[in-house]
Amino acid sequence: MSFDLVIKNGTVVTADAVFWADIGIQGESIAAIGQELNAENQINAAGKLVVPGAVDIHVHFQMPIGDFISSDDFFSGTRAAALGGTTTIVDFVEPDEDESMLAALSKRRAEADPRVVIDYGLHMTIGPTEIGKLGEVQAVNEAGCGSFKMYMAYGLRLDDGQLLQALEAVRQVNGLPVVHAENWDVICMLIEQNLAQGNRTPHWHPRSRPARFEGEAVGRLIELADYVGTRVHVFHVTCDEAVQAIARARRNGKPVTGETCPQYLLLTQDVYDAPGVRGAWPVCSPPIRGQEAQDALWRALSEGNLQVVTTDHCPFTSADKATGLGDFSQIPGGVPSVESRLAAVYSCGVRTGRLTLNQWVDTCCSAPAELAGFTRKGRILPGYDADLVIFDPDQQKTLSTETLHENVDWTPYEGIELVGWPEMTISRGEIVVKGGQFSGREGRGRFVARRFD
Amino acid sequence: MSFDLVIKNGTVVTADAVFWADIGIQGESIAAIGQELNAENQINAAGKLVVPGAVDIHVHFQMPIGDFISSDDFFSGTRAAALGGTTTIVDFVEPDEDESMLAALSKRRAEADPRVVIDYGLHMTIGPTEIGKLGEVQAVNEAGCGSFKMYMAYGLRLDDGQLLQALEAVRQVNGLPVVHAENWDVICMLIEQNLAQGNRTPHWHPRSRPARFEGEAVGRLIELADYVGTRVHVFHVTCDEAVQAIARARRNGKPVTGETCPQYLLLTQDVYDAPGVRGAWPVCSPPIRGQEAQDALWRALSEGNLQVVTTDHCPFTSADKATGLGDFSQIPGGVPSVESRLAAVYSCGVRTGRLTLNQWVDTCCSAPAELAGFTRKGRILPGYDADLVIFDPDQQKTLSTETLHENVDWTPYEGIELVGWPEMTISRGEIVVKGGQFSGREGRGRFVARRFD
Amino acid sequence: MSFDLVIKNGTVVTADAVFWADIGIQGESIAAIGQELNAENQINAAGKLVVPGAVDIHVHFQMPIGDFISSDDFFSGTRAAALGGTTTIVDFVEPDEDESMLAALSKRRAEADPRVVIDYGLHMTIGPTEIGKLGEVQAVNEAGCGSFKMYMAYGLRLDDGQLLQALEAVRQVNGLPVVHAENWDVICMLIEQNLAQGNRTPHWHPRSRPARFEGEAVGRLIELADYVGTRVHVFHVTCDEAVQAIARARRNGKPVTGETCPQYLLLTQDVYDAPGVRGAWPVCSPPIRGQEAQDALWRALSEGNLQVVTTDHCPFTSADKATGLGDFSQIPGGVPSVESRLAAVYSCGVRTGRLTLNQWVDTCCSAPAELAGFTRKGRILPGYDADLVIFDPDQQKTLSTETLHENVDWTPYEGIELVGWPEMTISRGEIVVKGGQFSGREGRGRFVARRFD
Amino acid sequence: MSFDLVIKNGTVVTADAVFWADIGIQGESIAAIGQELNAENQINAAGKLVVPGAVDIHVHFQMPIGDFISSDDFFSGTRAAALGGTTTIVDFVEPDEDESMLAALSKRRAEADPRVVIDYGLHMTIGPTEIGKLGEVQAVNEAGCGSFKMYMAYGLRLDDGQLLQALEAVRQVNGLPVVHAENWDVICMLIEQNLAQGNRTPHWHPRSRPARFEGEAVGRLIELADYVGTRVHVFHVTCDEAVQAIARARRNGKPVTGETCPQYLLLTQDVYDAPGVRGAWPVCSPPIRGQEAQDALWRALSEGNLQVVTTDHCPFTSADKATGLGDFSQIPGGVPSVESRLAAVYSCGVRTGRLTLNQWVDTCCSAPAELAGFTRKGRILPGYDADLVIFDPDQQKTLSTETLHENVDWTPYEGIELVGWPEMTISRGEIVVKGGQFSGREGRGRFVARRFD
Repeated sequence: MSFDLVIKNGTVVTADAVFWADIGIQGESIAAIGQELNAENQINAAGKLVVPGAVDIHVHFQMPIGDFISSDDFFSGTRAAALGGTTTIVDFVEPDEDESMLAALSKRRAEADPRVVIDYGLHMTIGPTEIGKLGEVQAVNEAGCGSFKMYMAYGLRLDDGQLLQALEAVRQVNGLPVVHAENWDVICMLIEQNLAQGNRTPHWHPRSRPARFEGEAVGRLIELADYVGTRVHVFHVTCDEAVQAIARARRNGKPVTGETCPQYLLLTQDVYDAPGVRGAWPVCSPPIRGQEAQDALWRALSEGNLQVVTTDHCPFTSADKATGLGDFSQIPGGVPSVESRLAAVYSCGVRTGRLTLNQWVDTCCSAPAELAGFTRKGRILPGYDADLVIFDPDQQKTLSTETLHENVDWTPYEGIELVGWPEMTISRGEIVVKGGQFSGREGRGRFVARRFD
Repeated sequence: MSFDLVIKNGTVVTADAVFWADIGIQGESIAAIGQELNAENQINAAGKLVVPGAVDIHVHFQMPIGDFISSDDFFSGTRAAALGGTTTIVDFVEPDEDESMLAALSKRRAEADPRVVIDYGLHMTIGPTEIGKLGEVQAVNEAGCGSFKMYMAYGLRLDDGQLLQALEAVRQVNGLPVVHAENWDVICMLIEQNLAQGNRTPHWHPRSRPARFEGEAVGRLIELADYVGTRVHVFHVTCDEAVQAIARARRNGKPVTGETCPQYLLLTQDVYDAPGVRGAWPVCSPPIRGQEAQDALWRALSEGNLQVVTTDHCPFTSADKATGLGDFSQIPGGVPSVESRLAAVYSCGVRTGRLTLNQWVDTCCSAPAELAGFTRKGRILPGYDADLVIFDPDQQKTLSTETLHENVDWTPYEGIELVGWPEMTISRGEIVVKGGQFSGREGRGRFVARRFD
Repeated sequence: MSFDLVIKNGTVVTADAVFWADIGIQGESIAAIGQELNAENQINAAGKLVVPGAVDIHVHFQMPIGDFISSDDFFSGTRAAALGGTTTIVDFVEPDEDESMLAALSKRRAEADPRVVIDYGLHMTIGPTEIGKLGEVQAVNEAGCGSFKMYMAYGLRLDDGQLLQALEAVRQVNGLPVVHAENWDVICMLIEQNLAQGNRTPHWHPRSRPARFEGEAVGRLIELADYVGTRVHVFHVTCDEAVQAIARARRNGKPVTGETCPQYLLLTQDVYDAPGVRGAWPVCSPPIRGQEAQDALWRALSEGNLQVVTTDHCPFTSADKATGLGDFSQIPGGVPSVESRLAAVYSCGVRTGRLTLNQWVDTCCSAPAELAGFTRKGRILPGYDADLVIFDPDQQKTLSTETLHENVDWTPYEGIELVGWPEMTISRGEIVVKGGQFSGREGRGRFVARRFD
Repeated sequence: MSFDLVIKNGTVVTADAVFWADIGIQGESIAAIGQELNAENQINAAGKLVVPGAVDIHVHFQMPIGDFISSDDFFSGTRAAALGGTTTIVDFVEPDEDESMLAALSKRRAEADPRVVIDYGLHMTIGPTEIGKLGEVQAVNEAGCGSFKMYMAYGLRLDDGQLLQALEAVRQVNGLPVVHAENWDVICMLIEQNLAQGNRTPHWHPRSRPARFEGEAVGRLIELADYVGTRVHVFHVTCDEAVQAIARARRNGKPVTGETCPQYLLLTQDVYDAPGVRGAWPVCSPPIRGQEAQDALWRALSEGNLQVVTTDHCPFTSADKATGLGDFSQIPGGVPSVESRLAAVYSCGVRTGRLTLNQWVDTCCSAPAELAGFTRKGRILPGYDADLVIFDPDQQKTLSTETLHENVDWTPYEGIELVGWPEMTISRGEIVVKGGQFSGREGRGRFVARRFD
C-alpha cells in the first residue's frame, strides 16, 4: 500500500468521533485512515486537528443587486474561502426575466468555471418570473442543481401562493428548497413609517425587521412546506423565534432544517450604531440582533435545532454601502464571512464550551455537505475526496482587513481575536493553502453536480 | 314595590348560575330578581327557562357584495332575530372609497334606524382605502362604534403591513378589532389551480381554503396584534387549527377571543356535494369543514378557548347563488342563521351534553354583549335592560323555510329537528314575540352606542 | 312583598358581576335582589361592597397533634371567622385507630355543635388505619361528609397503593378527595441530613421540603386520581411546580382543582429567619417559599389554575412552637389565618390589580362553596342562605394580635396594613358581626350535610 | 504497513456513515480503515456489512433470585452473546448484606474471569443495605465499576429518600446511575388486589403494572436526579409514558438516557395469554405491553428519545417458571435475548424501515459502549479494539431453542423468522465465531475497568 501523501500524527476530528490516526491519500481521494501509515510525501500534524474541508453552502460571489455587484468574484472569493479552510462552496443562479433556468445556469457556470480555486455547486433561484418556468425544474435537477432558492422578501419575493407552487415543483423532483423567510409586507410598512418619521440611519435597520416576524415567516413557510409534503431548509436564522418554529416542526417529525451565520453568532445589533459608514457596513438581512438572540443561536446549534453554519457571504465596498447613509433601506445588504467561518465557530464556539469539537465539524463541514447533496465531501472516510484541513487549535489570529483576503475594504469582525486557525488546506489531495499562503491555481476548482432523488 | 311586569316561577339561567326566581320589570329595565314578586301583569314561566335576550354581534343585513345584496333587510332580519330570541345585533358599516367613516356611519344608521325592531350596534370596516382615514378612528369610537372590522381576504383585504397600521390605530382608542382571518394568496392560487383543472363545483370550495391556512392566518393575526399590543377578536373560527392558535395565545395571557357560528357547529362539508344549486347554497367563508373540525369547535366552546357564538348571517337568494354554479369562486358567500342560533346551540349543545346551560347563555348572550361593549345587555341583573327570553326547553321545532322567518328561499338547516325554542321574547320590557308571533313595531329598536375606553 | 331585612344601596359583587342593587332578606334566606327594595329593618350599604359570606373549607380547630392541640376551639375559631367575614367553615374528623368513621363523626360533631357560631361541615380523614374501614365511605357520604382527606406526608401518610385504594373508594360514591401532597420519603431524608449536619433552626424547614418535590407529589397524585377516574382537590398549593402540574391536568380536561392560603400569598420564606421563637411561629407544611413562588400563586388564581383560597388555619401557641426550637422538625405546624383571609385577598389581590373583584369573591366565597358541595352558600341569589358580608373597601386595618380575635398569642401577619375590612357579617339573616363587634350566640351555627352524587 | 488480518471489500456501517473500505487489524486493535489494504490473512466480506462488535450493557448471568438462579452462566451466556455478534457485556454485582462492595466485586469477578469468552464489565448494585456503604462508591469507581444500579421496585427497592442519597453519592464521583423505575407501592397493591380476586394467571402480570406508573416512576426518578444534579440512565423502558418523561427532560437539556430491549420491541402482551407455562415464560418486569407501546419504542429509538438497546437477559428454566403458575407474582422474572439482539433489531428495525443502518449500529454498539464508559469498544476507528462483526444482511434465521445457544429450554421468540445474521464475530482480533460455530476459548475474555470522571 503506497500513498501519494500521508497526514501523520494528527488528532482526527469528525462529526462523530475524535481519534488519533494518520490519513493516507492516493490521487484526489482519501485511501486510508490508520496507524503508522507512511509515504515519502508526508505532513506532520502532531498537535494539530485534522478535519474535513469545510463546506459553505450559502455564498454570493459577483452578485448583482441593483446598481451594485458583490465585491468578491469567483476567484477572490474561493481563494479567501480556501485560506479559511473551506474547500467547497455553493453560490446561486438568478435567471433573467426572459431567460430559461438552464441558460442562466450555463451562463453562471461560464462565470465560475474558469475562476474557482475550490469545488463548487449552484442553487437555482425561483423568483416571480420563474413561476412560469417551473416545467424546467426537473431538467435543472438533472443538471446538478437540485436545490432551489426562494425569497419571501425583496423584489424576488414570492407571495404565499407562488411559494406553494414553487415548493410543489421542487417536491416533485425530491429537490431541496432553501428559503429566505421574512414578512415583507410588515417590513415595508415599518421602513416607510421609520423613514416618514425621519429615522434614516442604520440604527433603524433591525428595528424595521422585528425578530418575531422572522419567526412568523419561518412558521408560515413550514406550514406551506408541510402542506405540499416537502422538506425545506431555512436560510440565515437570526433569532429564537425562528429557531422555535423549526424546533417545533422537527419534534413533530417534519423534515425542516436551518442554518445560521457567523455575523449572527459573533456580533450584536449595536454594530448598527457605529458612526458614519461603519454603521452601514454590517447591514444585512435578516439583521443582526441582540445578545439574547445570539445566545439562542449558539444553543440551537448545540441542541441540534439548527444544523448548519454558512456565511451568506455577500460583501459590498464601503463606497457602495455609503450610498445608503441617508436612507438605511437603500444600503446594499451583506457582509463578508467566507474566510473566517471555520475558525470563528471554533474559537467562539468550541473554546468557550458552547459546542463540542464534533458539533463544530458537523455544522461547518459534514452536515452542510450532506444537506446539499455532496456525496464525496464533508467527511474523512476512505473513498471521499481528500478535502482536508490541518487546523492549529492554538494559533492566534486577529481578524482585520489586514489579515483577511476577502476583496472588500472592511470587515465586521475588525479587531476580533480568534484562537485557532487553519494551517493547511488540501483540496482533492492538493495543498492549496500552507502557512497562510495560497498556492492553488485559478480555475482548478470544479462544478459538482448534486442530484437529489 | 310595584312592577310593570313580572316573570314568575321560571328557572333562571345565567352565565354563572341556575336558580328559581321571579323577575320584576319596571319600564324598560329589570327591577328585581326575587321570590314571590307580583304584579298585575305577570307571565307564568313555570317549566320554562328564563334567559337574557340573545346577542348576535356578527350579522350582515342588506349588505351589497358585487352585484348582489344580502336578502334580509334591517326589518326582516331583526324580526327573524327576535323570533329566535335575539334582542341585540351588531351589523357593519362599509365606507365607500371617497367617503369618510363618519359619513358612512350616518348613512348606515339612516338605513337601519327606521326599520330595526330590536336594538343594534355597528362595527366600522377598515378596508385598504380606510388606511388613509385612520385619523377618524377616535371620532368613530366616540360615535359609539369602537369595534373595527378588518379582512385578511377578499377585495377588502389588508396586507400584513396595512393590518398592523389598522390594529395600531384601534389600539390607540382601546377599541376592539374584529377580524376575518384567512390566507388570501394561498386561496387565490388554489382557486385558480382548481378552476384550471376543471374543478368548478361547490365541492371544491372548502378544498380551496384548507383549514391549516385558516390556522396560519389566525396565528399571524395574533402575532401582529401582540406586536401592537392590542386585543383582537377572531371572527367565524371553523377548525381546530385556528382554535389552537387562539388557545395558545390565551394560555400566554394574550387578550385574544374567538367565535364560531351555527353553520360550523351543525353542518359538515358534505353539504357542498348536494346536487345543483343546493350545493351552492351553503357556500360561505371560511367554509364549513369536516366532522373533526365540528367536534373541535364544540370542545373549544366547552373549554373556553372560543367564547362566543354569532351567526355571520348573510343570506343570498337561491337565484343569486345559482349564478356561480359554473365557478364556485363566484358564488356570493353567506348563510342565514340569525333566527335559529339560540335554539340550535341549546338543542345540539346542551341537550347532547356538550355544553352546560351556563355555557349556552354565556356564549350566546353574556359573553358577546360584554365583548362588544354593551353595558346593559346580556345579563339578568337589576338595572339591566329588560331583554329576556322565556325558552321552552321541550318545544320541538323543525327548521325549514316554512317555519323560519328569514327573508331567503332556502335554509342550510332544512329538516333539522330541534328540541327547545323561545316562547317569548321581551325587548326593553316589551313583549315583541309571543308564541311564535311577532308583535313588535318596525323602527322600535335603537342604535346603542358602545364606547371602549 | 315584605322583607325582614333589606341591605340597601350597596355595590353587589358576585363571582360573575358587579352591579348596584338592594338585597331583601326573608327569614334565613335571600328573597330578592332588586332596585328600591324596602323594609322597616334596613341597612344602608352605600359606598360599601356587598358580597356573599366567605367560605373557608380548610380549618383545624381544637385539633390534636402529638402532645399539642391547636389553640382555637370551635367557638373562638368560628367567632374569629365571623369577625373576618367568613360564614361557613369546613373542619376535619380523624378517627382513632379502632374507631369507626361514623363514630368519629358523631364525636366530632358533639365537640362542634354546641360551640360553633356559624355553619360548618366536616371532611373525613382516611389514614392508614382507615384503609380497613373503606366499607364505611358510603355511609359517611350519606351522613353529609362526602369529602375525604388524605395525606401523602406525616404519620397519617398513605403510600401510593393505599392512596389508590382510598381514591377508588371515594370515587365509588362520587365524593371529593382533598389531599395534602408532598414527597414524604424525600422530606424525611432531608430532615435527617440537615439535623445530622447541625442545621436545626426553622431556617432549614423550607430547605427540607423543596418545592419541586411538592410539584412531583401533586403530579403523582393526579396520575393516581386519573387512573382511578376520580376528581381530586389539592390542598395548600405553595409553588409554581405544583400549579403547573394542576394546570397541565386541567388543560387535558382532568377534574383537578387546587387551593392556596394567605400565608403563601402574603409571606415569603425569610419569615423563618426571624430570631428565636418568631422564626418558629410560621412553621407550617408545605412551607412558605420565596417571592417567585408567591408571584406564581397570585398568577395561578388570576388565570384560574388555582380556584380557591382557604386558610389551613391551625394555630399553636408560642409556647408550643418554642418546644421545637432545637429541632425544627418537632415544631407543631400551622398558622392562624381564619380571620384575615377575605380582607387579605382583597387588599393584597384586588387593590394591587392582581385579581378582579369577581375573582376575589369567586376564590373566597363561591368556588369553595360549590367545590365542597354547599348548595345554599357562597352566592347572592334568591333562595340561598342570607350569608352576606358588607365590606368596607377603604377601611384600614393593621393586622396584629391586638386587632385579631384568633385564640393565639402571635400572628404571622403582625404589622401588615390592610385596606378593606368587613363592616358587617350576616349569617342566615342574622347580624353576627357589626362594626367589629361579635354579636352572635355560641352554638347558633349548624352542621351542614353536604352530599355528593 | 502490514496487518495480521484484513477484512476486505465489506460495506462498513458505523453510527455515522456507510462506506466501502477494508479494515486492517494488527494484534488486538484496528490499525487502518482504507482502500486496498492487504495481508496474508484476509477475509472477504463482499456483500456483507462490517459493524462494530455489539455491546450489551444489561445482562444477568448466573444471577440468584430467591431460590432460583438465572440459567446462563458466564460461559454459556458470553458464548451465546458472541454467537449473536456481541463482543462486550455488562453484568452486575450484588453485595450481601454484610459484605463490602469491593469484596462483592472481587467475588463476582472470581466467578466471571475464568469463564467469559468476550470482554465484560460490571455494574455495582446499591440496595437498601448499601446506603450504609456509600463511602465505598469512590473506591468502586476506581476499581472500574463506576456505574451503579438502583431499584425502585422489588426487595432491593430504595425509597425516594434513599434513592436521593444513592444518586448523590454517585454524582460525587461523576458515575453513572442505571435505574429500574416502577412504582412499587402501586404494583404491590394491584397484585394483592388481583390475587384476592382470584386473578392468578400470567395474564394479570402486565395488568398489575400499568404503563402510566412506569412513566410516573421515570418522571420521579428524573426529578430526583435533577435535584442532585446527576445524569441518569433509565433501564428497560417499555412504554410511551416513560419515553415522554425522558424526552421532556432531554428537551430541557437534562442528561437523561434510556434503553429498551428486544422483548419489548418484538413481542406484545398477548404472550401472557399462552396456555400453561408458555404464558409464564415471558414474565419479566416491567412487563411486555400492547402494540401501541411497541410502536412508541421503535419511534423513540428512531427519534433519539431512547438511545440504547440492551437485553436485560435473565433466563430461568421452564421448570423454574412453572413454580409460579398458581400465582403470577411468584414467577421468576426474565427472558433470554442476549444472542438475538443485534439481528433482531436489524431484521425488525432496519429492514422494516423503522431505523436506519446507522441507528442500528448506534443503538446496539456505539451508544451503549460510550454510555457505559468503554473507551475502546463500539466503534470502527484506528486504535480501537478489533471487536468486529461481519453481518450477512440476507441470511435467514428462524429463532428457536434449536437454533439458539442460550442455556434455557425455551425462547420467547420461538418461530420468529429473521433476515440477517452475524457470519463472523471477531473479539480483539481473534475470530471467535465463524459460520455459526463458536471457536473461542473459555476465559479468554477480560474484565474492562470503566472509569468515569
